[in-house]
Amino acid sequence: MTPKDIQDYMLHMGQQARQAARALLRADTAARNHALLTIADTVEAREVALMAENRKDLEAGRAAGLDAAMLDRLAFNPERLAAMADGLRQIAALPDPVGAITDLNYRPSGIQVGRMRVPLGVIGIIYESRPNVTVDAAGLCLKSGNAAILRGGSEAFHSNRALAECIREALEASGLPADAVQVVGTTDRAAVGELLRLKEWVDVIVPRGGKGLIARVSEESQIPVIKHLDGICHVYIDDHADLEKAVRVTVNAKTQRYGTCNTTETLLLAESIAARALSALVPLFAEKGVELRGCERCRGYEPQMPAATEEDWETEYLAPILSIRVVNGLDEAIEHINHYGSHHTDAILTEDYTRARRFLREVDSSSVMVNASTRFADGFEYGLGAEIGISTDKLHARGPVGLEGLTTLKFVVLGDGQIRE
Amino acid sequence: MTPKDIQDYMLHMGQQARQAARALLRADTAARNHALLTIADTVEAREVALMAENRKDLEAGRAAGLDAAMLDRLAFNPERLAAMADGLRQIAALPDPVGAITDLNYRPSGIQVGRMRVPLGVIGIIYESRPNVTVDAAGLCLKSGNAAILRGGSEAFHSNRALAECIREALEASGLPADAVQVVGTTDRAAVGELLRLKEWVDVIVPRGGKGLIARVSEESQIPVIKHLDGICHVYIDDHADLEKAVRVTVNAKTQRYGTCNTTETLLLAESIAARALSALVPLFAEKGVELRGCERCRGYEPQMPAATEEDWETEYLAPILSIRVVNGLDEAIEHINHYGSHHTDAILTEDYTRARRFLREVDSSSVMVNASTRFADGFEYGLGAEIGISTDKLHARGPVGLEGLTTLKFVVLGDGQIRE
Repeated sequence: MTPKDIQDYMLHMGQQARQAARALLRADTAARNHALLTIADTVEAREVALMAENRKDLEAGRAAGLDAAMLDRLAFNPERLAAMADGLRQIAALPDPVGAITDLNYRPSGIQVGRMRVPLGVIGIIYESRPNVTVDAAGLCLKSGNAAILRGGSEAFHSNRALAECIREALEASGLPADAVQVVGTTDRAAVGELLRLKEWVDVIVPRGGKGLIARVSEESQIPVIKHLDGICHVYIDDHADLEKAVRVTVNAKTQRYGTCNTTETLLLAESIAARALSALVPLFAEKGVELRGCERCRGYEPQMPAATEEDWETEYLAPILSIRVVNGLDEAIEHINHYGSHHTDAILTEDYTRARRFLREVDSSSVMVNASTRFADGFEYGLGAEIGISTDKLHARGPVGLEGLTTLKFVVLGDGQIRE
Repeated sequence: MTPKDIQDYMLHMGQQARQAARALLRADTAARNHALLTIADTVEAREVALMAENRKDLEAGRAAGLDAAMLDRLAFNPERLAAMADGLRQIAALPDPVGAITDLNYRPSGIQVGRMRVPLGVIGIIYESRPNVTVDAAGLCLKSGNAAILRGGSEAFHSNRALAECIREALEASGLPADAVQVVGTTDRAAVGELLRLKEWVDVIVPRGGKGLIARVSEESQIPVIKHLDGICHVYIDDHADLEKAVRVTVNAKTQRYGTCNTTETLLLAESIAARALSALVPLFAEKGVELRGCERCRGYEPQMPAATEEDWETEYLAPILSIRVVNGLDEAIEHINHYGSHHTDAILTEDYTRARRFLREVDSSSVMVNASTRFADGFEYGLGAEIGISTDKLHARGPVGLEGLTTLKFVVLGDGQIRE
């Protein structure tokens, strides 16, 4: 396609999405849930055809030299298809956020004023290899009454196209607009650029993938972006911590998984507990193969530990590396976190009531925790039912973004002929 | 100042604001309310000095040929200064939004998860002539725990600087950081451009003023903007309307004030009630000097009425002009509003329950009303206490933006040593 063709193609997609979004405003709870269940059934019924299309991507991926981990992320099998279908059934079972009216109160003028939760409209989702995102994102958008434009990775092109057909047929069979979920049908990278310019037709963009993708989307988008940048998470062991709990939580926060955004990257230790904490933690981390890098005071206790540099405090390792700093106490810990952190997830480990209360209030992060592993920062663990991503922004959605983050509130006013004097 | 000087000046202001915002996270409800009351007292105590500074602006304005209406908006008098002080006292009396924790529930893992309302951080407000915005905006930002950078119009430079001094002294006397409210001390327009680039230091920009200002700020800003564009508001008189109520509300919605964004610009009439509605409304609007422009069907009833063009449906007149269209019924009315409207405020006038219910759900606007004048779309009328502006955006804040719109929610997690399995 020529650049002009891609521009026209994406514009048309945007306009169709807007029209579908308007029609979705009339779709009641039962209709949207029925569509979700029908998509689930269709995905399961099409197992053979989906596997065949997926094989095309896997063959192309092998030919292009994708590594084993990427090929694994790409691959369908009956269990994974069943898991996609189950995910849709779980979304269908969640309470409908759309149309809920809250805080409807009478005002002195005689009008009643309240707020109704409504869909955002059209959501553009740009993601990388895993094709299950196609189904998950379609499910969350439909449940919340939004139309979706999905742009998956080129390495999953055939798989995504086949899933898109399942979704389209199920939408038609359910009486919802077929354009409520559209999958971009070209692997040309220019299509992403065009999508990010459709500000009249698309209300929000959600990028899901590596830092390169998110940086490009944030930079280029003329549409608001719900995004997630770094996850430089901290654990602070206060001098009033229960050492047994502190050690257990710290090891879990660092080692339960290394590559996730809610993994702890820096450990802060109150001075008076530093020696005891280090002597418990150093052997445990050594056993798990975690490299430790310490500040000068830390190396006073553990002289063999390599020195942490200024750069370490600003690094999301996503690897078995932990930087450790000894601080005077709570004030210095909060200052360090607010200065070097990425405002993602930070935890204090303490039995001291007042310090726990101050930490919760004063640490400026999307999740603040007392005596719990930073690894809990997750839509499912928080009870949101499902998540479309984690936001490190402050406006609109902060932290794990579930169905509520795909909606907004409008004011409703009920009167009986009132006029303003 | 050279461009580099302005850049350094604004960068320094941003850094100081961020530092002040961190300190405000530690300021409790009493401290922030005390500061608001002290500013109020200071403004009243400085009446003579403030009037003298204001006279400099008025003299410069007269020399520059500002019209009488602009000079009036600019002028201080004892009543207006007292009104500013009272506004601050009212803000102080509002409930504190900061720190409120909601929905704190136990999860199966044993952790408790809830959400805490917290300040956005640093808010940049760019506004035009009225200097009372300096005091109102400072009050709303402080109450919600945010630091503010205020950039008023150059024609109010001396007045704003004098108010800024009152605020600064009151902050210092109250033990809050003096940089919690900073007023840009240069009239150079380049300062606005620099402010809009401070994305590391400023969390949100609120422009208040004419369309030119808002368009420029939205276009240039690298920081999220809470903005208000057009107000193309509609009244739809359904065929089941109570005609007496409908006439009263319609006249109020159009004529109570012409220049406000929640004034109705287009009237939609269900066909079966059109003749009766027009015969009641036409003389009332004639009496008030409102020019009517009708669609072809409308002119079937009122042949002397000038014809409305496509452009009329897309115009915010802000003037005594009303466009009128006859529609087949509810579906066509909703389609017209969602297509031509600006998603601001729209009302249905009807006694029909089902149509009222559908209108509330299907009209995609920040305020949707039944049997009430669109003029009610206002922070005070809605009970928000005060408003910093009205948002026609969907993300974050929609409709009148009060204290809550200057805050966000973070997750709080309370555990007892839980780890993720």
